[in-house]
Amino acid sequence: MNSKPYNKRKIINDPVYGFITLPYEIIYDLMEHPFFQRLRRIRQLGLTTMVYPGAYHTRFHHALGAMHLVTEALATLKTKGVEISDEEAQGVTIAILLHDIGHGPFSHALENSIVKGTGHETLSLMIMEQLDVQFNGQLRVAISIFKDEYPKRFLHQLISSQLDVDRLDYLTRDSFYTGVNEGVVGVERIIKMLNVKDDQIVVEAKGIYSIEKFLIARHIMYWQVYLHKTVIAAEFLLIKALKRAKQLAEGGVALFCTPMLHKFLYNDFSTQDFIKDPSLLKAFSSLDDYDILTSIKVWQEHDDSILSRLCSSLINRKLYKVELQTEPFDAAYLDTVKKTAQMKFALRNEDIDYFVFSDTIENRIYNKEKAPILLQYKDGSTKEISDTFDLFNVANLTKPVIKHFLCQLK
Amino acid sequence: MNSKPYNKRKIINDPVYGFITLPYEIIYDLMEHPFFQRLRRIRQLGLTTMVYPGAYHTRFHHALGAMHLVTEALATLKTKGVEISDEEAQGVTIAILLHDIGHGPFSHALENSIVKGTGHETLSLMIMEQLDVQFNGQLRVAISIFKDEYPKRFLHQLISSQLDVDRLDYLTRDSFYTGVNEGVVGVERIIKMLNVKDDQIVVEAKGIYSIEKFLIARHIMYWQVYLHKTVIAAEFLLIKALKRAKQLAEGGVALFCTPMLHKFLYNDFSTQDFIKDPSLLKAFSSLDDYDILTSIKVWQEHDDSILSRLCSSLINRKLYKVELQTEPFDAAYLDTVKKTAQMKFALRNEDIDYFVFSDTIENRIYNKEKAPILLQYKDGSTKEISDTFDLFNVANLTKPVIKHFLCQLK
Amino acid sequence: MNSKPYNKRKIINDPVYGFITLPYEIIYDLMEHPFFQRLRRIRQLGLTTMVYPGAYHTRFHHALGAMHLVTEALATLKTKGVEISDEEAQGVTIAILLHDIGHGPFSHALENSIVKGTGHETLSLMIMEQLDVQFNGQLRVAISIFKDEYPKRFLHQLISSQLDVDRLDYLTRDSFYTGVNEGVVGVERIIKMLNVKDDQIVVEAKGIYSIEKFLIARHIMYWQVYLHKTVIAAEFLLIKALKRAKQLAEGGVALFCTPMLHKFLYNDFSTQDFIKDPSLLKAFSSLDDYDILTSIKVWQEHDDSILSRLCSSLINRKLYKVELQTEPFDAAYLDTVKKTAQMKFALRNEDIDYFVFSDTIENRIYNKEKAPILLQYKDGSTKEISDTFDLFNVANLTKPVIKHFLCQLK
Amino acid sequence: MNSKPYNKRKIINDPVYGFITLPYEIIYDLMEHPFFQRLRRIRQLGLTTMVYPGAYHTRFHHALGAMHLVTEALATLKTKGVEISDEEAQGVTIAILLHDIGHGPFSHALENSIVKGTGHETLSLMIMEQLDVQFNGQLRVAISIFKDEYPKRFLHQLISSQLDVDRLDYLTRDSFYTGVNEGVVGVERIIKMLNVKDDQIVVEAKGIYSIEKFLIARHIMYWQVYLHKTVIAAEFLLIKALKRAKQLAEGGVALFCTPMLHKFLYNDFSTQDFIKDPSLLKAFSSLDDYDILTSIKVWQEHDDSILSRLCSSLINRKLYKVELQTEPFDAAYLDTVKKTAQMKFALRNEDIDYFVFSDTIENRIYNKEKAPILLQYKDGSTKEISDTFDLFNVANLTKPVIKHFLCQLK
Repeated sequence: MNSKPYNKRKIINDPVYGFITLPYEIIYDLMEHPFFQRLRRIRQLGLTTMVYPGAYHTRFHHALGAMHLVTEALATLKTKGVEISDEEAQGVTIAILLHDIGHGPFSHALENSIVKGTGHETLSLMIMEQLDVQFNGQLRVAISIFKDEYPKRFLHQLISSQLDVDRLDYLTRDSFYTGVNEGVVGVERIIKMLNVKDDQIVVEAKGIYSIEKFLIARHIMYWQVYLHKTVIAAEFLLIKALKRAKQLAEGGVALFCTPMLHKFLYNDFSTQDFIKDPSLLKAFSSLDDYDILTSIKVWQEHDDSILSRLCSSLINRKLYKVELQTEPFDAAYLDTVKKTAQMKFALRNEDIDYFVFSDTIENRIYNKEKAPILLQYKDGSTKEISDTFDLFNVANLTKPVIKHFLCQLK
Repeated sequence: MNSKPYNKRKIINDPVYGFITLPYEIIYDLMEHPFFQRLRRIRQLGLTTMVYPGAYHTRFHHALGAMHLVTEALATLKTKGVEISDEEAQGVTIAILLHDIGHGPFSHALENSIVKGTGHETLSLMIMEQLDVQFNGQLRVAISIFKDEYPKRFLHQLISSQLDVDRLDYLTRDSFYTGVNEGVVGVERIIKMLNVKDDQIVVEAKGIYSIEKFLIARHIMYWQVYLHKTVIAAEFLLIKALKRAKQLAEGGVALFCTPMLHKFLYNDFSTQDFIKDPSLLKAFSSLDDYDILTSIKVWQEHDDSILSRLCSSLINRKLYKVELQTEPFDAAYLDTVKKTAQMKFALRNEDIDYFVFSDTIENRIYNKEKAPILLQYKDGSTKEISDTFDLFNVANLTKPVIKHFLCQLK
Repeated sequence: MNSKPYNKRKIINDPVYGFITLPYEIIYDLMEHPFFQRLRRIRQLGLTTMVYPGAYHTRFHHALGAMHLVTEALATLKTKGVEISDEEAQGVTIAILLHDIGHGPFSHALENSIVKGTGHETLSLMIMEQLDVQFNGQLRVAISIFKDEYPKRFLHQLISSQLDVDRLDYLTRDSFYTGVNEGVVGVERIIKMLNVKDDQIVVEAKGIYSIEKFLIARHIMYWQVYLHKTVIAAEFLLIKALKRAKQLAEGGVALFCTPMLHKFLYNDFSTQDFIKDPSLLKAFSSLDDYDILTSIKVWQEHDDSILSRLCSSLINRKLYKVELQTEPFDAAYLDTVKKTAQMKFALRNEDIDYFVFSDTIENRIYNKEKAPILLQYKDGSTKEISDTFDLFNVANLTKPVIKHFLCQLK
Repeated sequence: MNSKPYNKRKIINDPVYGFITLPYEIIYDLMEHPFFQRLRRIRQLGLTTMVYPGAYHTRFHHALGAMHLVTEALATLKTKGVEISDEEAQGVTIAILLHDIGHGPFSHALENSIVKGTGHETLSLMIMEQLDVQFNGQLRVAISIFKDEYPKRFLHQLISSQLDVDRLDYLTRDSFYTGVNEGVVGVERIIKMLNVKDDQIVVEAKGIYSIEKFLIARHIMYWQVYLHKTVIAAEFLLIKALKRAKQLAEGGVALFCTPMLHKFLYNDFSTQDFIKDPSLLKAFSSLDDYDILTSIKVWQEHDDSILSRLCSSLINRKLYKVELQTEPFDAAYLDTVKKTAQMKFALRNEDIDYFVFSDTIENRIYNKEKAPILLQYKDGSTKEISDTFDLFNVANLTKPVIKHFLCQLK
């Protein structure tokens, strides 16, 4: 055995799973690429740290974790006789490693303010295509699986379905780092229960309780973490600050900026622009949390009083006060709140929205229309899982839940 | 500080909570009493070890664990301004420590075969009364709380309700020792969310997700552990073996026995007998897992072929084959199975039931009629928790679930 | 895939490692054998539960755990290019599964009282030989590895050396179940660092800190658990009770006994007897904790006041008071203590030893004479590990530590 | 109970300890202060994430964790009869909360390059003094304890000694987030073993194994994490990059900078300057990881080829190759390496040091001269702990260990 491959079979410490082993040389090489290294500087949960101070884990770590789970899942499937070639195994491993590589910093905020019109899935795919060129076509199978064009469709389901390793890792990892134990999922058990039937991922019937636990964990993580009132408050403060900055930039006002952020703040790029100009993708791929938060910090002292107030509110954690309810807010009430803010902060009509606004959040625990979870019984038959629940209210489990919130700066 | 109380403030290692501190001198003295030491020799989960080989934890440990949680709960309630005197705190602590002291070995099996007619709650109370005499009346408050006769009724709820420290500890402990992570409950968080309103235990509204998790954990532990097919198979094998032994004893057949077991095998005692003759309670209190399993082991070689077969099946883990379903078994099918067994084992009609039988198991996740869980909102109002669920099917959550099973020895 | 092997690739829940998968059909069959099932009824740590009430785990579970670790170790070695045939892998797996199968109940106590002269290693080997016959020679490689006669000697080292999977599992498992976190060992990391060089197991040099941790954990577990004063007190109480029973039996006194215990209590068998009479091995293989503790419980009421006192002291946890020191006890002091006891309990001279005695315990953290731990550097060279320590006092680490203790019943 | 204090008794999720409760209103207010909020943006372990991708935890979280442990320690001491007034308890709690508040981003790097001459302890004290003014003198006791001027000296020892809550938290937290389980410490047990004797913190003798474990954990964390070769490589790359930037700034070269960093890059401030000009402290208190890493990112494109190379090496993780040894490097060897680099990178003599250099790292596990650890025996006597070890090489444990390393950019 020569030393080079040996060096690339790295073992990485992971507080969640213990150790993560890199299964292929190319995984090591992809991990070393600046596109992937950037994910070290992008937190998985953005501003959730405002509520859960342990949750600074990064997209880099999530990508490695999901890759670890795919490796485990492939090993399980193989022992059950599912045929998976080395090329396919490598393909699906690369695909999950890179599935989030198109995420920008504070993705939700960015896509709502500065980089509009091109979603992170599109960007992930573009980056994979670019890496495929650099790696002499070694990513073809991965891309095919990622786009769900690969004949064995269960490989795509492993990385993108109602029960994929993406969800399994992020629920596990996010609950670990937030300390919200209610979100812990029996990941190891679920993976050991996986099988393939008619080119679809299925779960052995005795794994049903683990799936119930998985769904309730997902439900809890949404309301207790991802859509926590204070998290919403922080994220919308960032969205509004970036929107204001963009508005000022469009008006020609000077703003402290890193060169990368400057490019996106002072220009509007369409997906077509990304396609035409590959350097744009490289520029995007150097943006990270540091560009954003550093600018926010500096903008605390900006002359524009709206921008400076939004930014210092965020930095010093004087967040929006948030009300959350299932019904839309009463127009008259909203109006009163806006009026009060307008007077208090001496706002022009068109600026009120930075201080008071209402919007909605949505969440769906389980979408049975889209790669649903199938249980497999001992006789080989399968059943879509929501047909088997007796404890859950299936209607509520499978439909999107919409909540209305009202934010106001005090 | 004199040395005596110091010595009795023992710290006990507990893999589940880290350390358990004995909060009162009398707790140490009660723990040292032979009645309580016996619990070291009674497993919490009986024959569940046949499926989960890690689950050898004892009722002794559960009692200490529940006591630890009551101590934590009392501390939380006090910081929220709930008035609890030292005498009351000690009372509720004693009550939970002793709440299961009337359990016999393999309780379910025993109460279905040898010690019929006197449930463990009755025996627990009798033992507490006897200890109260020995401890010069120091258990009065504890007994009053245990019987729900104490004026502050929330103290009883702490130890006996839909969300009591008994359930919190056993779910946590059983999931820990079985390794069924799906049963893990956010015990620490639930306890921190407790409060008292109108003399009832309530949970702060933001604890709702922890309660959802608690209920689903309970659901999962029932079907995955407590009512696991193989656990049922083992427990009913023990019931049948003990029934056969009892039948033989009644017929005057000699059976190897410890003296304690002999007393209960060759006699039938009513609750009245226990009341009249205190030595009976003492005899009962020396019965433990060792009397039972040792006899079963020896009976493998007994002349009665039914007894010996049942016993060796249990010891060598050749358990009943179990079928489990929601509907009653078809009479004709049951009949066929019985006939087959009768021929195979050359059984008399009246003995078939030892080899083939059908019965039911029942489980109710949450009984809203009986000390239900109340959520408390920020405005002080409270609501029974099942009114607030959207994810659960409340009807199924709150009604008893009955399943039918059929056991046959092969 | 036919259904039979599938059914035998069981997954077993383990609180320590999550899941344990049975890697071969024969492992399932061996596990089902009564010889192995008996290990369910033999605690790994005997009376240690008197101090650590969580430590009821069994030899059954330890055997499965060590088997799990060997499976992991084999997988690691294979990825590093070490050649191991399927037959060898199965052999070493069987060998570790059965390595402790010759243990009697409360082994230390039994070997000091009732079953003298035939150690558990000898009995393990005899049982393996008997199983080999029953399994048509399928255990040949396992036995050869167990006896260190197999050419690839590193396979024996995996299961018996200063850093074998036996130690790795029991340290991990015992610290888990006692709750003594100081004993936790980085088992996963150590296994990933293993390699083979010149037919010897070596550890990659960067694993040195894990080894240091392993040695200190071993040191701590010895003094905090295995040789804890109260554990000694309980174990010697059992030894003395069994010795007394044996003495009475030799004098023809009747004692309550299970048939199996009766055989060994009323007879003395040599290793030759075991070899000559295979039924003896079967009898031994039906002895477990239940025979012993049940008898002890019954003997509390025996007419012999010494036996009954020893037994009730054990059952009710009124253990010997123990003094522990590095020097032998002063003869005059010992004499005084004995005299006092003699008067208090009205003892004959020859019986004092049941109430007061002094003895020694011994422990050696690391024996560099016997399959020592080798570190392997990047250049391929190896070094015996104690040559590399700077933090440890190597002399004290490698020599046996002897402590003297004095027990007295109060 | 009025609502205000209620709202400030926040419960914060912590993956390490479960929950952290804020014990005093003023703790909440201090936590909300921008000086403290800044710690959210300063990682505890700087660039250690280059090796351990889970280790993004912040000084904010460590400060809360250490505060939690002090609360636990105070509770333990009180139950043992140690007199601690509410004012003192609050004082020591504030002192530990703020003990690291003077740390800059990447402290080690910064103090070696940009903010020279004023250590973080000095800055912590200055900030506490400033907060004391803002909080109307409520920090007097805390400051007195922090400076070790408070009469009850054991309070200072709780937060600063060889076994203080600072070390206990950071070892626990750092091992948790890195996933290096070898560093786990039995924090709960150690705290339960604390007592006070003659105004000094002592540990009950039976806690000795926990202390041994603590020392070995410290040893392991130093060599496996804090002084890991790759961590050194990353930290020195940052130091060199900042030094180069400072050199360029002194030469009047323009550099992208946040305003806060600009202040410190283009000026040299002495401790006297900090004392004279309070605004300087405020400026320092707005510096965080984001200023530093953002600048490093931008400097990748700087005209100065040395600066740009150092910065892009750091960002893209092409770190120094490091050799580590106990002896100083041979001068001739060092010279050759330097010559090679000079040719390869076409360096001027005075710039070689940015590419190749040797330096030392130092570590001392246990300093018995400075607030040593005292064991307390049952007779009340105490002993300095290193006198009691037999397993450790005390000389090596207590003396500083110095290692030499050589870094070269490839």
